[in-house]
Amino acid sequence: MIIALDAMGGDNAPDVNVIGARDALSLYPQISEIVLVGDKATLSESCARNSLTDPRARIVHASEVVEMHESGAKAIRRKKDSSISVATELVKQGAAQAVVSAGNTGAAVAAATIKLRLLKGVDRAGIASPIPNEYGTCNILDAGANPEAKAKHLATYAVMGSVYANKVLGVSRPVVGIMSNGEEEEKGTVLTKEALILLKHMVDSGHANFDFRGNVEGHDLFETRLDVCLCDGFTGNVVLKSCEATAKAMSKWLKKEFKRTPFRVLGALLSKGAFGNVKERTNYETYGGSPLLGVRGTVIISHGSSTSLAIRNALHMASKAVKNEVNPQIEAALHALTLPRVNPASEKSSKPESNS
Amino acid sequence: MIIALDAMGGDNAPDVNVIGARDALSLYPQISEIVLVGDKATLSESCARNSLTDPRARIVHASEVVEMHESGAKAIRRKKDSSISVATELVKQGAAQAVVSAGNTGAAVAAATIKLRLLKGVDRAGIASPIPNEYGTCNILDAGANPEAKAKHLATYAVMGSVYANKVLGVSRPVVGIMSNGEEEEKGTVLTKEALILLKHMVDSGHANFDFRGNVEGHDLFETRLDVCLCDGFTGNVVLKSCEATAKAMSKWLKKEFKRTPFRVLGALLSKGAFGNVKERTNYETYGGSPLLGVRGTVIISHGSSTSLAIRNALHMASKAVKNEVNPQIEAALHALTLPRVNPASEKSSKPESNS
Repeated sequence: MIIALDAMGGDNAPDVNVIGARDALSLYPQISEIVLVGDKATLSESCARNSLTDPRARIVHASEVVEMHESGAKAIRRKKDSSISVATELVKQGAAQAVVSAGNTGAAVAAATIKLRLLKGVDRAGIASPIPNEYGTCNILDAGANPEAKAKHLATYAVMGSVYANKVLGVSRPVVGIMSNGEEEEKGTVLTKEALILLKHMVDSGHANFDFRGNVEGHDLFETRLDVCLCDGFTGNVVLKSCEATAKAMSKWLKKEFKRTPFRVLGALLSKGAFGNVKERTNYETYGGSPLLGVRGTVIISHGSSTSLAIRNALHMASKAVKNEVNPQIEAALHALTLPRVNPASEKSSKPESNS
Repeated sequence: MIIALDAMGGDNAPDVNVIGARDALSLYPQISEIVLVGDKATLSESCARNSLTDPRARIVHASEVVEMHESGAKAIRRKKDSSISVATELVKQGAAQAVVSAGNTGAAVAAATIKLRLLKGVDRAGIASPIPNEYGTCNILDAGANPEAKAKHLATYAVMGSVYANKVLGVSRPVVGIMSNGEEEEKGTVLTKEALILLKHMVDSGHANFDFRGNVEGHDLFETRLDVCLCDGFTGNVVLKSCEATAKAMSKWLKKEFKRTPFRVLGALLSKGAFGNVKERTNYETYGGSPLLGVRGTVIISHGSSTSLAIRNALHMASKAVKNEVNPQIEAALHALTLPRVNPASEKSSKPESNS
């Protein structure tokens, strides 16, 4: 199996990508080759600097880079020779089975949807972003690829997220919920209420490859067995960033407090491992990346500030998605699925409930 | 000034309400009377048990209670003699200027919007819920009263939230932002893009009683000077609960780690004050409650698990909102405001951008 790596993507490119590739090649024999895509001279130097001499690592030149602040979609149209474009093109041409990128998320999504196109039965791709959960990880789907989703997109996400949780994360029967402003069925927006109807229909007609929990709330992300949390991409992105920001703020405030008195400094020293363990648990490095589900090819999007460990884990995740045939399984599951038409008018007429 | 207290509302009713009222009466001379609304016998007993003998505390009987799990709007229609209904009725009749409730949020919102009606110039009420921020608090507005908001509602929220931040929280020139899936102007949904146009128009035409920061993201809730974060009530509610859940999960995981080894137990003992200080900072008790802005009367909604300290602070907050004339100032600010018609079609035609 060949994986294309956007070696110029991310805040710490190219070194973390090169080291991540080196470590993945030594650890995961199912990866037969990693194609490092980016400026040839820069990558050759980085390989030399980081002792990547494995012949299974090959450089493919790309003269441009999409910067983190650029509009992803526009950049893909303009920069035809960007590393993410060239890496995705390799998957399109069958020269690689997966692409991993820690670069501009919008660009990775745009490159994938434009070049690879969608799987049969899929209307919109979605990003599944993991959040640490008492029972494993809860994957927020969609975390930003499709900001204004329709109910049928959420229904497809349920199927795709469940295949992914099953085949890559090893969850035997994934649990799916819809993020809402209350657990009661009358809570939510037109979108979540329509999605609730579709998901219940899937369960009732025997077409659900998951257990359905109905509406879920913030605390379910962490405390409940919940493998896939369905949202439109706007809500998912906002929730994900808010959770990350809360964890960061809590850590910052605690660190500040721990410096206030000599006793506390000593206490912090004695307890250092505790913070480290929680940090590891909440760290994106451990998860590697977020798959973009629904495109013809395997696409793993890693955090912009990925370390070499995160890249290594993202490459591992990509290899598992390819090896365990996530995409063929998604197409098979969607083939059997027909969704009823939900009447938005009947839903819209019921005034939304405020939260309790 | 007379404040009606839904003395039967909340998980720890009635005692925390009675103690909160007792302490507020002894601390805040601007409160001339607190009306405890609820079952007379129960409240009399609680007053005796908690040494509330102040003649400025008066009981008004209400035979019913809206339970936390009930649908708020339905309960208000059905339970005419519920404590929150009777308390809100007192404000309607001018027998009190404010109502404070730690009971069912949906019921408090329904009672207020049905009985008190909206301020002149206001189409929808909104809940402003505080989040601790490096610079004070960031108020999520709306946190759940109006799940499917329109852009003009967000524009009105900006004005109302700024008056509140100025008059109650003492912020001289509030900073307002729109929660979105990226800071760039092309990010967001039809709703946030339309709101962005309206808010910029308010700034350009000199009708903004705030500084406008444009789109904001999760980290801005904690790290940036941001007094009011505008969202539809669905997004606000989901973000608020997700942030609370993240903080809770982090605390839980840290506590667990601190019990793992004797060294860590000792470290935790030495550092105990540090956790306490962060807890205090992130604790809703400190803030007291969330105002429901836009209704004719002052309504403060407190957390269901409020302690007596939270109730005391909520009563204080209510008294400040009345004393500093938040509602007349909101009406004055909205009187001068005319919003342009935004063309949703022109916005909708631009395909939403995925996140970066």
